[in-house]
Amino acid sequence: MATVTDTPIRIGVMGCAEIARTVSRAIDLAPNATIAAVASRSLEKAKTFATANGYKQSVKIHGSYESILEDPEVDALYIPLPTSLHVEWAVRAAESGKHILLEKPVAMNVAEFDKIVAACEKNGVQMMDGTMWAHHPRTAKLKEFLFDSDLFLIGHALQIHSCFSLAVDEDFLKNDIRVKPNLDGLGALGDLGWYAIRAALFANNFELPKIVAASPGTVLNEAGVILSCGASLSWEDGRTASIYCSFLANVGMEISAVGTNGTLCVQDFVIPFEETHATFTTCLKSGFNDPWVSRPTEHSVKTEIPQEACMVREFARLVGEIKNKGAEPDGFWPNISRKTQLVVDAIKESVEKNCQQISLSGR
Amino acid sequence: MATVTDTPIRIGVMGCAEIARTVSRAIDLAPNATIAAVASRSLEKAKTFATANGYKQSVKIHGSYESILEDPEVDALYIPLPTSLHVEWAVRAAESGKHILLEKPVAMNVAEFDKIVAACEKNGVQMMDGTMWAHHPRTAKLKEFLFDSDLFLIGHALQIHSCFSLAVDEDFLKNDIRVKPNLDGLGALGDLGWYAIRAALFANNFELPKIVAASPGTVLNEAGVILSCGASLSWEDGRTASIYCSFLANVGMEISAVGTNGTLCVQDFVIPFEETHATFTTCLKSGFNDPWVSRPTEHSVKTEIPQEACMVREFARLVGEIKNKGAEPDGFWPNISRKTQLVVDAIKESVEKNCQQISLSGR
Repeated sequence: MATVTDTPIRIGVMGCAEIARTVSRAIDLAPNATIAAVASRSLEKAKTFATANGYKQSVKIHGSYESILEDPEVDALYIPLPTSLHVEWAVRAAESGKHILLEKPVAMNVAEFDKIVAACEKNGVQMMDGTMWAHHPRTAKLKEFLFDSDLFLIGHALQIHSCFSLAVDEDFLKNDIRVKPNLDGLGALGDLGWYAIRAALFANNFELPKIVAASPGTVLNEAGVILSCGASLSWEDGRTASIYCSFLANVGMEISAVGTNGTLCVQDFVIPFEETHATFTTCLKSGFNDPWVSRPTEHSVKTEIPQEACMVREFARLVGEIKNKGAEPDGFWPNISRKTQLVVDAIKESVEKNCQQISLSGR
Repeated sequence: MATVTDTPIRIGVMGCAEIARTVSRAIDLAPNATIAAVASRSLEKAKTFATANGYKQSVKIHGSYESILEDPEVDALYIPLPTSLHVEWAVRAAESGKHILLEKPVAMNVAEFDKIVAACEKNGVQMMDGTMWAHHPRTAKLKEFLFDSDLFLIGHALQIHSCFSLAVDEDFLKNDIRVKPNLDGLGALGDLGWYAIRAALFANNFELPKIVAASPGTVLNEAGVILSCGASLSWEDGRTASIYCSFLANVGMEISAVGTNGTLCVQDFVIPFEETHATFTTCLKSGFNDPWVSRPTEHSVKTEIPQEACMVREFARLVGEIKNKGAEPDGFWPNISRKTQLVVDAIKESVEKNCQQISLSGR
């Protein structure tokens, strides 16, 4: 088998959101990807962004989204546009043959997302969402503790609590797109809850819960956008999760899992305290009469490159497989994006129906 | 004002449950209390228990509960009887003029507990429940972080997650009184959930929530006793809590609070890892753009005597104030017992009504 040194995957940045700064750096750091182009609604904005982020002269500047879609020297697009624009531009990107790294939440609802997936499948392009923590080596280690058939350390994750909160300022609460119904209308649920939901799915091996119910106490802004909410998820066999997301509380990024054989705790699951490594604690096979017969152990997992660069590297690897080796797109990533979106939708529906239980059977 | 060196409060142990071993040691360790008597349903059982726990020869052995009630050399009774027997024996104890340290859950429901409280009030005796962690110096420190008006470190506790789980064995699941409807019929909710609920109330300054809803996924045994359940609580101003309790999962004893100004985490809130000190972490005023501008800080709080001895010491202090100085019983403790029981009742009602929201207004 011949080894080919493939050229880096050429990524275009479609939109100049704040998060695009982080991902631009990540593309730089990923060994198999390069920034090839940037687009905004005006040439001026795109130029300013390129300069501010130290883009090379060779990076092409596009003054419209249409223009970057037609750029033959772009393999894939990173799309950090407001959520309400995802369905239009992700579908158009797929139809232009571009692979898609799509910011979360992936769509306003799963019906929209299904259009994106259909377009990707039809055009043979890879789709992945921008959930960075999924790509940290720590996450792989957590998976071992949760599911490795030899270790089976935690056993069934009977209860997961996951929380992502960020205390935003007054300006954000008035002006940010994430509090505007026509832009990122899923609010804190789409922006932060997405991660907490993903954590609950992750700890249940991406099995979709049977029932989802919003918890009493949702906080909405005047336009009806969720600023803070919680929800309960339940699976068969008594497995449950509680999730919480809020724009109104101090930074919290916790996963706490209680399983049949042990517990697991992560304090910084969305953004690790340190860029070079990340920690978590486990406490295994504690006793009944002597509860602390075993004590929590801290584990530390190194990462060569930051988790967002790991994400770009994995995305570019999959795109490379397709581009250079004729592989099929990997269905895992759109599949878990869809499940996350389904739970987002169900929580929103439950919020609107005064915390009614929503069944996910058949969805 | 003259200082009187009071004689220790004479406590009778009414029932020989496993937990009575821990509390017997606690009475020994408390500087202001002494074990004066022990009662069981037979003299033989009481004798065996006294011997097994190294009771002094001077401790009186009673072969019936009636007998210990009539013992004039007993000031107060510690009652670890099955919950279904609390209302009868706690009322009779109060009517006999005995102060009461009552194991949790305090009753099968709040109506029963109100009978106990009425009897205590009528007879001027102190009532306190057996929630040991409430008396650890760490808990006082947590309170400072949550509520001190100068520090106001956490700000409003916007979301609390509290969990108490213990993996019991097959024998327990078949035979323990905590899985029997006619004995401790509140199951895991009464036994473990009690603590998690108390933590949620504690973090909300013992304000009763407005709404309580069981989460989907409750596990019942064949007799309908709760083995595992979760619930959501909500207060005004968007304050919420999620609680979880389970006999089926590994040991977990977490309080995780997310407030306006910081987060707080306790990993061992029910029974500290160490008897001599206990820890917790806080993370204050984290940022939005740089979430980890401040990092978690670990705090350690020493205790001279174990938390259960602190509990006995406080109980005996209050009894001493009444006995020696003519003070009134302290209403704080029965008040928070009642609130905890109200939430237990509401969660049980919600479980029975398929997770319907239960309003606590007016209860």
